[in-house]
Amino acid sequence: MKKLVLLRHGQSVWNLENRFTGWTDVELSPAGLLEAVEAGRLIKDAGLLPDIAYTSVLQRAIKTLWLGLEVCERMWIPTVPDWRLNERHYGALQGLDKAETAAKYGEQQVLVWRRSYDTAPPLLAESDPRSERHDPRYEQTEALKAMAGETLEDTVARVVPLWEQAMAPMVQSGRQVLVVAHGNSLRALIKHLGRHTREEIMELNIPTGIPLIYELDDQGSVLDHYYLGDPDKVAVLTQAVANQGRLQS
Amino acid sequence: MKKLVLLRHGQSVWNLENRFTGWTDVELSPAGLLEAVEAGRLIKDAGLLPDIAYTSVLQRAIKTLWLGLEVCERMWIPTVPDWRLNERHYGALQGLDKAETAAKYGEQQVLVWRRSYDTAPPLLAESDPRSERHDPRYEQTEALKAMAGETLEDTVARVVPLWEQAMAPMVQSGRQVLVVAHGNSLRALIKHLGRHTREEIMELNIPTGIPLIYELDDQGSVLDHYYLGDPDKVAVLTQAVANQGRLQS
Repeated sequence: MKKLVLLRHGQSVWNLENRFTGWTDVELSPAGLLEAVEAGRLIKDAGLLPDIAYTSVLQRAIKTLWLGLEVCERMWIPTVPDWRLNERHYGALQGLDKAETAAKYGEQQVLVWRRSYDTAPPLLAESDPRSERHDPRYEQTEALKAMAGETLEDTVARVVPLWEQAMAPMVQSGRQVLVVAHGNSLRALIKHLGRHTREEIMELNIPTGIPLIYELDDQGSVLDHYYLGDPDKVAVLTQAVANQGRLQS
Repeated sequence: MKKLVLLRHGQSVWNLENRFTGWTDVELSPAGLLEAVEAGRLIKDAGLLPDIAYTSVLQRAIKTLWLGLEVCERMWIPTVPDWRLNERHYGALQGLDKAETAAKYGEQQVLVWRRSYDTAPPLLAESDPRSERHDPRYEQTEALKAMAGETLEDTVARVVPLWEQAMAPMVQSGRQVLVVAHGNSLRALIKHLGRHTREEIMELNIPTGIPLIYELDDQGSVLDHYYLGDPDKVAVLTQAVANQGRLQS
């Protein structure tokens, strides 16, 4: 039996402000920095010291990883940043807060964007200053430079190949794998691992900064899954994410 | 013309205490943390933003890298930890301070260890609690588990293949490469780059936390080299390293 450790980055400054974030590269909040340290401690105490770690190319995930590795004394392991673990690209919603979004597009439309598996957000124009067109981390790839918004389905379509090509072989070879990513890229991975329906995965809410363990058999089927740490705290945090779900980013 | 950026980690707690460090995995001192941030700022201001970075598997180098990448907004680049960039292994000298070393082995012998290119330090016994035999980062490789002490010649012999196999091709392909390492692993690399004699390389003193630029032509020959930042400060720091040289680690 293999154990895979998934970790949503600590609270970012835009989680705190309840803004759609997507690919916008915002920092962790002070509370998020503490969450990352605590996550490292939980991983260390559980004896799940990583041999290799995967992250997005967004600083809120990378910083969460670095702080966690420092706490569990694993700074020296290989770490793999990959854009395919980025948050779902939220298009022209990126940077908007709840009130702005409702005022601009209407409450009903916001509900569709948040509840639907295959509805794209309003797309980001190439000329929009929020576009990643000139971001050096995406400049090697035309498709990334032109990224204008994703459905969760699109996110699944990029996360699954990374899992199958890189991460799953590491897990099956016995390496302890840590994945530090985002609400929707982790949803995408979990949908694949657990063979969840579209409807099921939209109901899944992952709190920030709490290590989530997936136990897998040798065929990669899920045997069990659970959070590390105090279950009461996890329950409260998961409910908090569900309540703010419509602006989860 | 290519520019390679070399960086010796910031001051460690044992640099501060004037102890032989070698492979002992000590932390940066508070001053060393600040040096790392300042190094990142110098790299950013010089426009030498790295596309890829190489470090040792020792936390003083990795932390220096991480802080530098954070300052120059390059947290998302690939980073490659490799034991071949570790400090020279100082054997049974690791942990001893200047007074202890002189008292135990005599001043004359300490001079030989520090001035000689091919004299090994006293070897670390397998049973010594300072041995890395049980360190998980070396456990895959018998030769590393059994590491008991190195000459600078040994250090050169492991650094050069890493340069030739991994780093030099990256530099020649036009990638901006950053190497964050240690006094003696950088000496080893510079000896190779500059085709220095054994005597010349023993006279080279590299201050902590100051980016050192090597300009290379397309054949990898050195065109020029210089430190970033205030030349007067660099001169003072280089002299300080030379003065403490007999205990440089």
